[in-house]
This record gives sequence, C-alpha cells and structure tokens, in this order.
Amino acid sequence: MAAQAPTAPADVYAEVQHFYARQMRYLDSGEAETWARTFTEDGSFAPPSLPEPVRGRAALTAGARGTAAGLADAQEQHRHWVGMLTVTPSDDGSLTAESQVSIVAVPRGGPARLHLVCVCRDVLVREDGELLVRERVVTRDDRP
Amino acid sequence: MAAQAPTAPADVYAEVQHFYARQMRYLDSGEAETWARTFTEDGSFAPPSLPEPVRGRAALTAGARGTAAGLADAQEQHRHWVGMLTVTPSDDGSLTAESQVSIVAVPRGGPARLHLVCVCRDVLVREDGELLVRERVVTRDDRP
Amino acid sequence: MAAQAPTAPADVYAEVQHFYARQMRYLDSGEAETWARTFTEDGSFAPPSLPEPVRGRAALTAGARGTAAGLADAQEQHRHWVGMLTVTPSDDGSLTAESQVSIVAVPRGGPARLHLVCVCRDVLVREDGELLVRERVVTRDDRP
Repeated sequence: MAAQAPTAPADVYAEVQHFYARQMRYLDSGEAETWARTFTEDGSFAPPSLPEPVRGRAALTAGARGTAAGLADAQEQHRHWVGMLTVTPSDDGSLTAESQVSIVAVPRGGPARLHLVCVCRDVLVREDGELLVRERVVTRDDRP
Repeated sequence: MAAQAPTAPADVYAEVQHFYARQMRYLDSGEAETWARTFTEDGSFAPPSLPEPVRGRAALTAGARGTAAGLADAQEQHRHWVGMLTVTPSDDGSLTAESQVSIVAVPRGGPARLHLVCVCRDVLVREDGELLVRERVVTRDDRP
Repeated sequence: MAAQAPTAPADVYAEVQHFYARQMRYLDSGEAETWARTFTEDGSFAPPSLPEPVRGRAALTAGARGTAAGLADAQEQHRHWVGMLTVTPSDDGSLTAESQVSIVAVPRGGPARLHLVCVCRDVLVREDGELLVRERVVTRDDRP
C-alpha cells in the first residue's frame, strides 16, 4: 500500500490522549481560563461558527466563558468526545493531531442527545515540557 | 500553565484501556461473575441509581445479574463506551482513572439510541499482576 | 481472577489505534481503493448486511464505492467510531483486534444521529511492515 506518514510513538500518543481528555474536561467544566492555557499564548482556534479564528488566550478565555454561561443558563451539560485520533510528528518538532469530535448534550433531567460531530485538526507544540495547541481548525460534518 | 498531576506511562495507559474494554464487555455480555471479579474482593461501586455503594463481589455479581436479566427481558443490548480517559498514579501504587462513559442501548430491531452519559472515577489496584477496581464512583450528567 | 489472554504491548496498541483511525477515515471520505488496500490482497470482510463475505481488494473497492455513492446521493456523511478495543497477539504473529464500532450519520443541515452499533472482530497481519486486515467479521447489535 502507499507509504503513510509516520505516526507518533506510543508514549507521545498516550500523552496526546491524556492532553485531550484534560483539555475537554476543562472546557466542559467551564474552567475557561485553564482551558485557554492549553493553547499557546498566541494560539488560534477556528471554530465552524465564526468567520475568523479566535486568537490568544484572553479571547479564548472569553469565548469559553460565554459558552459556559450559555450552557449554565440552559441547564445543559456538554461532553466532548475525541476519537479516531492520529498523531503525526513534523520535522519542526510540532505534532499534527487529527480526530473526530462528538459533542453530547445532556439537559438536566435528560435525555442525552448527540449534538454535533466535528473534525478537529490541531498543531500541537511543546513548551516547558507541556503540549499546547498552536492552531486548531474545526469543521462540522453538517456544513460542507 | 499550572503544574498537572503526572499521568501514567504508555504501557500502563494501554493496559488500563484494555482493562476497561474487557470489563465492560463482560458486563454487556451478562457475564456477571466474571465482571465482579474485575473488582477487588471488597471492591465498591457507587452507581448514581443507589443511595449506598454496592460492596463485595457477591453483591456486585447479584447486581449485574439483575441488570442482565432486565435487559434480556427487554430484548435490549447495552454497550458501554469509555472515553476521554486519564490515568494518574498515586504514591501508594494505586491508579486513579477518570473517564466519561456513554451507554448506548440497542433494542432488537433497532434503532440504537444514546441512553446515558456518566463520569466514572475509579481507584485501580494491582493484585497478582492484574488490575482490579477497588472503588468506583459514577455520576450521571443529567442528575446534578 | 481467571487468566486472561495476553494483550498487545503499548506500541502495538497505539499502532492499531492509528490503523483504525486511518482506515475508517478512508472509508468515510469515500477513498474506496485506499480503504481496500488496508486489507490483504485476498482479505475478507463479512458485514452483517450480506450472506457471504466480500473477498479481495477489487470487490472491497467496489463495495466501498457503492456505499460512498449512496451516501453522496443522500447528502449524508457517515463517521465510524472504533472504541473499547482489545488487541491480542496470536502465536502465528497475527493480531486479533476486537472492538465496538458506532456509525454516526450526519445529514447535510443536521442533526447528527446514531446510526448503527456493531461489534468488529479482525485478524490483522503485517506485510512489509504495514498492518492489514486479513479477515473481518462484523455483527450488528440489533440483529441477534
């Protein structure tokens, strides 16, 4: 079969899996500032709902706070599920991480429902030993 | 960013992923006694549906048998999906494993539906080389 | 507890997780021929919808092309989610990989829905360093 891009070794793969579990937990718990610190200082996040990427931790924090406030008002818990993850090292030391992300919405009293399915493409870099997102591009499967 | 608790190395992380895949397979297949043996002899399981934790393998087996019988009567297959897993070693050699768990229900003839979304916090210990659950606390997202 | 079959080490487990992420991405992107090349030349795929397994890359390509064309007509994106994976090495060097697979369907304009839940049992072999499926058997939870 065609030569494939080499994938990250097991220790890096496990580290990235941990990274996403924690990062999404911060987001879904409304820990906006801690979530924003999983991006680099000038990290960008291009969500499907905005015409321009959100850039920098202050803007990322504000965005996550707004989302958390909206969910609190709606008495709804969101849970992000990252799966089908590939991690590919680049020559410059960064990692390209591609995954599918499902968002499940759980209103108080239930029932849970599948809210959205996205594809997430991250460039991850290491600063002081920690993985951080330098660039995130998310596309929605229902909006081609 | 804030210092994070160290996470388990890749070999332990893979072992815990295998552990959950097998444990949930036993439960969803109605192998109640085998499932109960994935807990320590005095292991406890605090599900969101009960006021007190279930303690010990005999009680765990009985509980899983009851659940399996109810599902068989309803001709419904449940599948547990564990995801967004973090595994953190403690000084005493135990592991704290935190995850999201979705339960998908599939009635005979379909269609499948998302039944429940939970958060699972386990303390895992090793006995004779095997990982076992010493303590499990499960909370449901729809019941704050 | 009962002795369990040994599971694959972390590096193989990570490799198999990458394998599925890529393989399902090919399928869901309609890259039928690339998908078929993730099977051995004479690889077989026994889906729940057919009385006999599909055998060989030409037949696998044709099948995946047909599925992709149907989804394109319906303006629907499918996403396969592989989870709860166990990988067990055999004496002959092959790997038995067992997993749950959810298929999520996303129509243009949404909303996403849980389409199917299956169990997948693969025999994986290595050729020229690459993992390939030699035999796949898929069963659906709604059709006992």
